[in-house]
Amino acid sequence: MDTQDLVINWRGDVIENSHIFHAAIVDSNNKLMYSVGDYSRLTLARSAAKPFQALAILETGVAEKFGFGDADVALISGSHNCEEKHISRVRAMLQKVGVTEQDMNCGGHPSLSKVINTGWIKSDFVPTAVYSNCSAKHVGMLAAAKALGVGIENYHLPTHPVQLKIKQVHEDFAGLKPDELRWVIDGCNAPSPALPLQNMALMFAKLAHASELSEDLDGPSIRNQRRLYHAMAAHPYMVGGDSRFCTDFMGSSPGFWVGKLGAEGCYGVGIRECQQTRDLGANGGLGIAVKIEDGNIDILYAALIEILTQLNLGNKEVRDGLKKAYCTMPRNTMGIETGHLSFQMDLKKHN
Amino acid sequence: MDTQDLVINWRGDVIENSHIFHAAIVDSNNKLMYSVGDYSRLTLARSAAKPFQALAILETGVAEKFGFGDADVALISGSHNCEEKHISRVRAMLQKVGVTEQDMNCGGHPSLSKVINTGWIKSDFVPTAVYSNCSAKHVGMLAAAKALGVGIENYHLPTHPVQLKIKQVHEDFAGLKPDELRWVIDGCNAPSPALPLQNMALMFAKLAHASELSEDLDGPSIRNQRRLYHAMAAHPYMVGGDSRFCTDFMGSSPGFWVGKLGAEGCYGVGIRECQQTRDLGANGGLGIAVKIEDGNIDILYAALIEILTQLNLGNKEVRDGLKKAYCTMPRNTMGIETGHLSFQMDLKKHN
Repeated sequence: MDTQDLVINWRGDVIENSHIFHAAIVDSNNKLMYSVGDYSRLTLARSAAKPFQALAILETGVAEKFGFGDADVALISGSHNCEEKHISRVRAMLQKVGVTEQDMNCGGHPSLSKVINTGWIKSDFVPTAVYSNCSAKHVGMLAAAKALGVGIENYHLPTHPVQLKIKQVHEDFAGLKPDELRWVIDGCNAPSPALPLQNMALMFAKLAHASELSEDLDGPSIRNQRRLYHAMAAHPYMVGGDSRFCTDFMGSSPGFWVGKLGAEGCYGVGIRECQQTRDLGANGGLGIAVKIEDGNIDILYAALIEILTQLNLGNKEVRDGLKKAYCTMPRNTMGIETGHLSFQMDLKKHN
Repeated sequence: MDTQDLVINWRGDVIENSHIFHAAIVDSNNKLMYSVGDYSRLTLARSAAKPFQALAILETGVAEKFGFGDADVALISGSHNCEEKHISRVRAMLQKVGVTEQDMNCGGHPSLSKVINTGWIKSDFVPTAVYSNCSAKHVGMLAAAKALGVGIENYHLPTHPVQLKIKQVHEDFAGLKPDELRWVIDGCNAPSPALPLQNMALMFAKLAHASELSEDLDGPSIRNQRRLYHAMAAHPYMVGGDSRFCTDFMGSSPGFWVGKLGAEGCYGVGIRECQQTRDLGANGGLGIAVKIEDGNIDILYAALIEILTQLNLGNKEVRDGLKKAYCTMPRNTMGIETGHLSFQMDLKKHN
């Protein structure tokens, strides 16, 4: 264990649990700058892929065809809490596209928000497809099928033109050949990509970099990338909801970075070029991808904040606020704090 | 990662998560027979220590003094679901001892049973001390204070005579010097022991062995050890409740073994001498202690069943039944099974 990078969870002076983690910090020119653990770990991005699934959906022309606004784009990129503003927007998007909940190939599940879920339990509410945290992505995929002029049936199957478009965008953005990405079935039943962590970081770095480019100088492909970054940054509530890390992460530093959680302890961050990224030697945008080997999401937030702290990225007060909100050790049933976290991290600098 | 013992969680053909685990298999003569990973890992037993806390409580004479039956003894050793039969028994024990809920130094928390907890949410019920999964242990500690003739105040503090008695039993049973055991604060606010995994296995092996000894031949200290084993084996529902692994584990093979879960992925099993244990070369009872490095309890059950399977311990149908009930991969929101578990385990034989 001594040579691994760990988040260590103590109870008193005894190690209760330890959690291996990996991270890759890459600039938008695909320069690996820093790493923790195995930066090439083949990692299931899960919902951390949603911004790039959203980008592929945008590239089919759905925004123009169906009048999707930036909040819709953020919602497609998000894993929402099923709060009223999320659900009413999903329903409005269904209407804009001219499809119904019955056309969606995802299922409901308990809300990611404890408050919402408690309300559901109290009222015996059984969530349906629109109450999937991925529901806007599924509406986006239905819209993309229509925009491409193909059938909406089986839009979630790997061979459907919408999924082929999503694969193409992932290959282009990650700089990988088709066989270097793997696709499996996600919790919401759509294809889900697995890719080396450093390539996931690259995708977020390129997204952040594109936010500062211009269509006129850099070509038409920039338009949707720019739009996506700014939509997420401007509508962080649509990417998550109340008391959600992604929302607070983006909301606390408007425009500075975007971030997206993936199930089972994975996270992607894209940071626009600034003095802090230049100080690290980055050229263009900066991307960070983190994976907790055992999938623990509380530990993920602690690891990400530690990496941001050690690299001096973002505002110290913002990091401290996120740490206070998301990395506080639980107290026991009598209110006593029984432990703390520590880090055994070798943040390697690459030249 | 190649040299570590892992439970691997796949999604399609990609590794989603992996979980390091450790195990020690020891006989009641303290012979280390098999191991996985670091068999000497200093491990917080958490609620897996309850049978030995219960033993120390029994040794103060509480059963005779307050008329505790075997179901009470099993409940003291257990982490109950707060089902009606658990709570009514805890309340009856309070009455027998002549103390009240206000004397208990633990707090309530969500039930370990999803069914019970759903009911609590629906009725806005706020659980109090008797609804701690450890409530019977706390009543037992109050009873022990009375049986010892000392004050009941602060019975949960490390220097109270009840806790000193518990420490002594742990040292004796684990074969450790005082400074080889460490004590921290548990979730229920009582002291919680940390000890090398092999010593935890030894404690369970000795408990199983004692169940077959006689007071007349082997001395008076055997009486409470025998009673404890048989109480747990005869009242598995009191150790957990509906749909709980410990209950099904003991209930499916009456008298053959006892098992107790500890929070954060730790488990102890004691198996009485039988042809299967003799085939492994054990002399006397057999003990197994397992710890998942990252604390994942679903993974714990899978690892334990795999170890039992590889060592051919217990009945195959029982193991298959437990596997089906506790190690089924969750399906996605459309009912599709998206992954499976595999094991990278070097079960070392020691001579």
